[in-house]
Amino acid sequence: MPRARAHVFIATSVDGFIARDDGGIDWLLRLHARVPEGEDCGYAAFIAGVQAIVMGRRSFEQALAFDPWPYALPVVVMARRGVAVPDALQGRVSVSADAPQGLLERLGAEGVARVYLDGGQLVQAFLREGLVDELTVTTVPVLLGRGRSLFGELPADVDLELLDSRAWPFGFVQNRWRVTGPSGESGASR
Amino acid sequence: MPRARAHVFIATSVDGFIARDDGGIDWLLRLHARVPEGEDCGYAAFIAGVQAIVMGRRSFEQALAFDPWPYALPVVVMARRGVAVPDALQGRVSVSADAPQGLLERLGAEGVARVYLDGGQLVQAFLREGLVDELTVTTVPVLLGRGRSLFGELPADVDLELLDSRAWPFGFVQNRWRVTGPSGESGASR
Repeated sequence: MPRARAHVFIATSVDGFIARDDGGIDWLLRLHARVPEGEDCGYAAFIAGVQAIVMGRRSFEQALAFDPWPYALPVVVMARRGVAVPDALQGRVSVSADAPQGLLERLGAEGVARVYLDGGQLVQAFLREGLVDELTVTTVPVLLGRGRSLFGELPADVDLELLDSRAWPFGFVQNRWRVTGPSGESGASR
Repeated sequence: MPRARAHVFIATSVDGFIARDDGGIDWLLRLHARVPEGEDCGYAAFIAGVQAIVMGRRSFEQALAFDPWPYALPVVVMARRGVAVPDALQGRVSVSADAPQGLLERLGAEGVARVYLDGGQLVQAFLREGLVDELTVTTVPVLLGRGRSLFGELPADVDLELLDSRAWPFGFVQNRWRVTGPSGESGASR
């Protein structure tokens, strides 16, 4: 059984930040106000192609603030120590202490072909281990100067293959890359 | 007389680096080998729209390694202390200790409408002072993990307006933004 493939779908500033230092996304919400009603920038199509969402503790705690719970798909929270899952979310949210490779292998064995990998720290950790398969990054037209970066340090260069690029009249640009680097597509067969 | 406008034209990795920590651009040259003969990714058209090139000491010293000298346009090297200009380049290269605003005002008074602002440190310095007018960034499909960033810290958010976006079959994406932020277009009138 192949491991589950990990796909990233995320928005960044032109200088590569996904949030301010304090986690704030006011800048993204401000720019998102330009997006016409009904335009989801490919989100529904993306979600239709994944069977589970993998996130870190911080993203989970942010998601808990939403009422109703925003995800129809099973969510796996990667956390070494216990994370409290509210009763109402039992059966929809699980917590895993697995390492990235082990988690994707287990999910693959459970029939999950692709997961949505959410959150900057998770994306960086999976990239470092060669476990990200596809990146969809929507660049919004602002420079922040500082904040939480989407990308971090890597043990080696990671080659990408541009699969798709589109721009919208409201100034968002979305690029989709397949990871083809030495540790990318070969990750499943190691 | 309005100040000269400053335009940036530069290539970066997907994670926003213009060079490795040691200045190396081996990764860029490797990817550039995929670009078909005769495709300049808009460089000639860009250069046709500027009347001078402004660069820092480091870019100048790198350019000196080329024989023949690669630039047909007048070059201004921004450096506080003396930079030695070889005899062969007298009249084509000048050295300026002006601050960014003063330099652009002086060049504007000399009839220069637009300059090509080259080099990461200069781009960052001009952006911090609200003196960059247009950014053309070509993103090449690789993640480096570390290196010299195109963008740096800013005193405030800088709003951009997407003017153009294009992608090539060899995987390069080029976006062109106008700086519209509070300190951008208003820079000339302060």
